[in-house]
Amino acid sequence: MDVIEVIRAKRDGHRLTPEQIDWVIDAYTRGEVAEEQMSALAMAIFLRGMDRAEVSRWTEAMLASGERLDFTGLDRPTTDKHSTGGVGDKITLPLTPTVAACGGAVPQLSGRGLGHTGGTLDKLESIPGWRASLSTAEMRRVLEETGGVICAAGAGLAPADRKLYALRDVTGTVESIPLIAASIMSKKLAEGTGALVLDVKVGSGAFMKDVASARELARTMVDIGTDHGVRTVALLTDMSTPLGRRVGNALEVAEAVEVLSGAGPADVVGLTVALAREMLAAAGLTPGRGGVKDPAEALRDGSALAAWKDLVRAQGGDPEAPLPEAAERRVVLAPATGTLTRLDAYQVGLAAWRLGAGRARKEDAVSFGAGVTLHAKPGERVAAGEPLFTLHADEAARFDRAAQALEGSFDIGDDARHEPRPLVIDRIA
Amino acid sequence: MDVIEVIRAKRDGHRLTPEQIDWVIDAYTRGEVAEEQMSALAMAIFLRGMDRAEVSRWTEAMLASGERLDFTGLDRPTTDKHSTGGVGDKITLPLTPTVAACGGAVPQLSGRGLGHTGGTLDKLESIPGWRASLSTAEMRRVLEETGGVICAAGAGLAPADRKLYALRDVTGTVESIPLIAASIMSKKLAEGTGALVLDVKVGSGAFMKDVASARELARTMVDIGTDHGVRTVALLTDMSTPLGRRVGNALEVAEAVEVLSGAGPADVVGLTVALAREMLAAAGLTPGRGGVKDPAEALRDGSALAAWKDLVRAQGGDPEAPLPEAAERRVVLAPATGTLTRLDAYQVGLAAWRLGAGRARKEDAVSFGAGVTLHAKPGERVAAGEPLFTLHADEAARFDRAAQALEGSFDIGDDARHEPRPLVIDRIA
Repeated sequence: MDVIEVIRAKRDGHRLTPEQIDWVIDAYTRGEVAEEQMSALAMAIFLRGMDRAEVSRWTEAMLASGERLDFTGLDRPTTDKHSTGGVGDKITLPLTPTVAACGGAVPQLSGRGLGHTGGTLDKLESIPGWRASLSTAEMRRVLEETGGVICAAGAGLAPADRKLYALRDVTGTVESIPLIAASIMSKKLAEGTGALVLDVKVGSGAFMKDVASARELARTMVDIGTDHGVRTVALLTDMSTPLGRRVGNALEVAEAVEVLSGAGPADVVGLTVALAREMLAAAGLTPGRGGVKDPAEALRDGSALAAWKDLVRAQGGDPEAPLPEAAERRVVLAPATGTLTRLDAYQVGLAAWRLGAGRARKEDAVSFGAGVTLHAKPGERVAAGEPLFTLHADEAARFDRAAQALEGSFDIGDDARHEPRPLVIDRIA
Repeated sequence: MDVIEVIRAKRDGHRLTPEQIDWVIDAYTRGEVAEEQMSALAMAIFLRGMDRAEVSRWTEAMLASGERLDFTGLDRPTTDKHSTGGVGDKITLPLTPTVAACGGAVPQLSGRGLGHTGGTLDKLESIPGWRASLSTAEMRRVLEETGGVICAAGAGLAPADRKLYALRDVTGTVESIPLIAASIMSKKLAEGTGALVLDVKVGSGAFMKDVASARELARTMVDIGTDHGVRTVALLTDMSTPLGRRVGNALEVAEAVEVLSGAGPADVVGLTVALAREMLAAAGLTPGRGGVKDPAEALRDGSALAAWKDLVRAQGGDPEAPLPEAAERRVVLAPATGTLTRLDAYQVGLAAWRLGAGRARKEDAVSFGAGVTLHAKPGERVAAGEPLFTLHADEAARFDRAAQALEGSFDIGDDARHEPRPLVIDRIA
């Protein structure tokens, strides 16, 4: 097989054959296909696309490049969710123990944040003692004992994707729907879950800015999951404004604990319950039957909170320990009285990132205490001179640039004009 | 400047700004832009194109990456030609001394062959003693003494193009008209010629298989030359069948000498004269005025042959020495009687390559004696059982695969059906 022929085929608008796909992924993983050859192919795929059969095979080939976890033989079905990432998206934190409390097993491999969206592992690492890196055996033990596990993917899972993702990041080939879908799904399929719910974010704070692209990404991923025998469902959810009232690592953990305690912001509670119900349904679990609980009930009765504490302890964390706090705070006041009619997710995410909650490069450390507290959400009343945001940072020098990011991030207007957006925009199965 | 922004701009169909082009070529030459980034950009350019201003600037930036020769101050005007490469295209050999004999100065930087088309330097190196590598001072001295010089481009000329060409070769991004045009023109402009005639080949044996692509390439190159103050003209010439009757290094030198002696195949003579007249005209030289001779006259009166001998000697070669011959020969007989109505350039080129006349990789050596003699050209009569081709190789083991390449390469049919193609298809100025 000749890599130039494969590149030319895609460049000239042809479908890649299964043999071409298998060969090019394998040869790239082994280093026989050079980085500059794969980047030319990635750009050709970016501009020419791949059809369902090609994307499925591409995913399969990346999956085949590494090990595949196997959680068969547990006493309950596995079910997982993946979010395409957003601002204030701490949903994995309340969701995993909630589904565990209801009767599912959640083998969640998560990532770290890069850019304006946070990463689940960064958030959890703000809990004193908590460890993200587990061996496969530890992962299985935690999953068996607590019904959930949230940890970093080992280097052995889909190494082709790891290599390709790093390449796409520096070659302007990230925003390709088939390549994004194959990247996400190769990792999720390697994780060995039996059912999968995808939370595809759409809006300024998300990777997908418009509903059409988000729907195409969701459709592509659901098809890949289905083609691989995993029951897969996607929800398109709004990311035009941040989720919840807290953006930042430890700030979001605290908010997740509120939700797990039966309180917390309505949007975070609502999305947790919606996704948990989908995860149970995809795993064939029906609340009320065979001891399966409804997620809203698990949040109310303390069983989700208990599962959270078990899960944190099983990975070395102390769920009762105080969370890190940033040394400095600055309050931003509302300039007018009225209804908050808009609050932009991207700008809030950028502010949190500038405060130190995120990282610019993979090797950077994050500040656990840094972030933004939102004192009002769209649809709520604000009064001139009252707090609108509180900024948290380890160094006061960060406040000015963060405050700049927030300039123009919100509108305060007439009550009548505000039409709340639905959180769940569409469901694709 | 951020390379990912530059890649994204082209990927999304925008024009690159002059600043982006200058920066990316310079940063790539210095190694700051990585190979995998440039290959992604090259693929984006392949699929999105570049307009006249972009291609001109891209060429300018590659030119600026290295040194530029300066032949001002000679006692006659400089004029050069470039061919996009074909099978049996030995035209540079008779053309350079012919133009020199007529009153022009030809500073010709040539290349080596790769694939099924031969390289001028490989052909000339079959002359005992002849040297392709000259210093800039030697080049000027030979040009002053003989009116012509044919040598290898030094590493200092358009190093960005050298690097980019090697990259395109392995990343499926060769066949891009703007990138081909910029590559050719950056080298020709670095050579410092005052006038330039482009011989753009079209047909099975050429890079450009159809007239529309060839015309687009010609137009693009003429525009670049014009934008840089060089009088540039292009001829579109037929490469559906080989030029002349000999394909192979020493075989083509012998045929060039025939032409210089006032004989030789009509197509080689015709194209030599046509290109020589264009080169003289582009340099402002008019036959009959100020001692300028017409090219057909220079071929007839021995002055072109004398210039050839001077030129060969000035670069260390012995024009009287016997040329290398291959050790083995095999004759392929005509299977039928009739008119040769078609003889495919690509297949003949491939046969010559398999016989050892060309190289598969840059570091390979060529066989000087290997090649194909054509005993009939399209339009000529052949008789069943008489020789159609003679194959020349250093090892008899090469004959079978070469003969396979020739299977189906020709048609023998009815006299009435043959319509000769014009050699010069179009002229673009």
